Amino acid sequence: MFREKQGIEVFLRHQVNRIDLKTRQIETVSLRDGKRKIVPYDRLVFAPGARSRRLGLAWEDAENFFTLKDLRDAIRIKDYVNREAPERAGILGAGYIGLEMVEAFVQRGMETTVIARGDRPASHLEPEVSGLILEELKANGVRFVPGQPAGSVGVQGSGRISTLETSSETFAVDLLLGALGVVPNTGILQGTGLELGKTGAVRTDNRQATRHPDIYTAGDCCEAYHRVLDRWVHMPLGDVANKQGRVAGENAAGGEAYFHGIIGSQCFKLFSLQVASTGITEKTADEYGIPAGVQTIRGNSAVHYMPGAEPLFLKLVFHRDTGKILGAHMAGRDGVARRINTMAVAVQTGMTVETLSRMDFAYAPHFSPPSDPILVAAEQALKKI
Amino acid sequence: MFREKQGIEVFLRHQVNRIDLKTRQIETVSLRDGKRKIVPYDRLVFAPGARSRRLGLAWEDAENFFTLKDLRDAIRIKDYVNREAPERAGILGAGYIGLEMVEAFVQRGMETTVIARGDRPASHLEPEVSGLILEELKANGVRFVPGQPAGSVGVQGSGRISTLETSSETFAVDLLLGALGVVPNTGILQGTGLELGKTGAVRTDNRQATRHPDIYTAGDCCEAYHRVLDRWVHMPLGDVANKQGRVAGENAAGGEAYFHGIIGSQCFKLFSLQVASTGITEKTADEYGIPAGVQTIRGNSAVHYMPGAEPLFLKLVFHRDTGKILGAHMAGRDGVARRINTMAVAVQTGMTVETLSRMDFAYAPHFSPPSDPILVAAEQALKKI
Repeated sequence: MFREKQGIEVFLRHQVNRIDLKTRQIETVSLRDGKRKIVPYDRLVFAPGARSRRLGLAWEDAENFFTLKDLRDAIRIKDYVNREAPERAGILGAGYIGLEMVEAFVQRGMETTVIARGDRPASHLEPEVSGLILEELKANGVRFVPGQPAGSVGVQGSGRISTLETSSETFAVDLLLGALGVVPNTGILQGTGLELGKTGAVRTDNRQATRHPDIYTAGDCCEAYHRVLDRWVHMPLGDVANKQGRVAGENAAGGEAYFHGIIGSQCFKLFSLQVASTGITEKTADEYGIPAGVQTIRGNSAVHYMPGAEPLFLKLVFHRDTGKILGAHMAGRDGVARRINTMAVAVQTGMTVETLSRMDFAYAPHFSPPSDPILVAAEQALKKI
Repeated sequence: MFREKQGIEVFLRHQVNRIDLKTRQIETVSLRDGKRKIVPYDRLVFAPGARSRRLGLAWEDAENFFTLKDLRDAIRIKDYVNREAPERAGILGAGYIGLEMVEAFVQRGMETTVIARGDRPASHLEPEVSGLILEELKANGVRFVPGQPAGSVGVQGSGRISTLETSSETFAVDLLLGALGVVPNTGILQGTGLELGKTGAVRTDNRQATRHPDIYTAGDCCEAYHRVLDRWVHMPLGDVANKQGRVAGENAAGGEAYFHGIIGSQCFKLFSLQVASTGITEKTADEYGIPAGVQTIRGNSAVHYMPGAEPLFLKLVFHRDTGKILGAHMAGRDGVARRINTMAVAVQTGMTVETLSRMDFAYAPHFSPPSDPILVAAEQALKKI
């Protein structure tokens, strides 16, 4: 085997039972034959990821209750849908996973209801963006039930869920998805002394080192440094995990690599709506006591008479005193996701709205108005500083 | 009239015969009734634009020869196509106008041939990008004839062009478009003493002021400061004209506004190919003696298994010593034009490839690989510095 030739052993379908930091040993057990094995290490990259959050209620064991974190979860859901042909789906939670699964369920012809704790979908985003998401849900026949903490929803049927009772209505479902976020898989660290951050995820530094000299960490189990907030956060996203993993691996192998942190850039698609965000929202700025101004633009993705041009919403959040750009939040049916990284560069480099307003962007009528909405937002914001 | 109420007189369909800088007067003549009028001014914004370059040959007067600069030209061409139903079109020149008209002619069912001076279309772009443009032309049944300076093409028929003779072949056309670039409309300035730049366009500064204290200028008639090349260039583009016009107007009216220059950002569409560019090419860096490194990436616009994902070509040009990004050049069928402005920000702010490689971009499989081609290019380039 190529891997063995390189001195690399691979344990597939093994569970880790115990990590002993003092003796530098991992105890694994094979999920196929139950055999235990002690694996010694010099350096360990601890990257067990996160798991879907559960409430610990009986109905979470029902055959038609699902969560979605990995490929196996997806296959379980797909198999169930293929086999049982459910007609009505409920989704607890209106974050990215919940909203992305809406589209999958609707495409499979299911009548779908999203039940959210807050009063709007994707409530971590700007309210205007959430409003556009809500419109997109409704335009695609999806019911949205706000103000319902998952623990307070009445779920009837334990072996098989049949009915949901919210404070406002009762309705039948054939399938229920729990999409309540994730929690880092840190259980195995209990008693080892390895330090967790305030977020509950593994504490790390910009070399992906933990507080233990032999152990590095990466991915959904650990924190990341948020450059705009100047604090460590738990924001489990795939591209971040990818980058952290490369840094952890290089350092564990004796190299010298750094992960330079995040600014919260993210995007997703819901039916034909693109949503993208970078930096912080107005609300987050408020919470952290950052004096923020905002500029909202309702422009177009391209010159209005061009085929494919679509309305584009953009909200710029900037520091009221310095003019530094703190965040940008966009939604629309065209040219949103690929526009956001222009703003990510502005946020990450601490650019001011004045500098942004001077940028020479590429213009063709197919792709933007002569003054891109980003430039218009920057110019308007400039008047507020 | 609203405009007259505001003290603004508008002369539509008037030609300017003469500008007298000493007496601050313009002599106009009405194209409708031939009446002359002297218009005095305190401040003048000189913005007559540019005109299509012509060779001064007899066949340029043929009824089926066209150039394209403004709406009237477009209407002339469209009327001719509607009336005469030409079946074969020739285009002299393979710049943006020539290439954009290819698509229009092909959509009208014409067999179209592009005749270029250079050996490839859009020869001011990177050769790899030109190569993709050539593929797109061929995939759409367009013939490309390289190495033919327009003046050396034999054009048969004077009242009506019927045949083109290049060094390699002779073929029939029913319509010929001259797309040989533009020249600034500065003729009226002859003898006035108003200074032109080395490019032949009106010389100006970052306030859009000319060397004459009463006269401002903007648009295709004048130069613009190229921030990467640190020199004044003539690069007539719509969004640049738009920005210059606002600055010229504000300053002419007694305000204080600045145009912060260009970096050569541009994009266009050819059939389903998007082409976008910012900063300078490798060849331009060479010409100006800038020691440039390049990094070429053939990536994907989105995660390869997603519907709509397309190959994406990216060439990064950077300063070999400092790592500063000098240019980025992209082509592909998806997510090109909206990605270029991320690079425009990097070029305009003098960002290094190292800083670029650390950017936190938004990731979703629909819109980019976990490591966007831009990040991959920056990481690879970093190894060459």
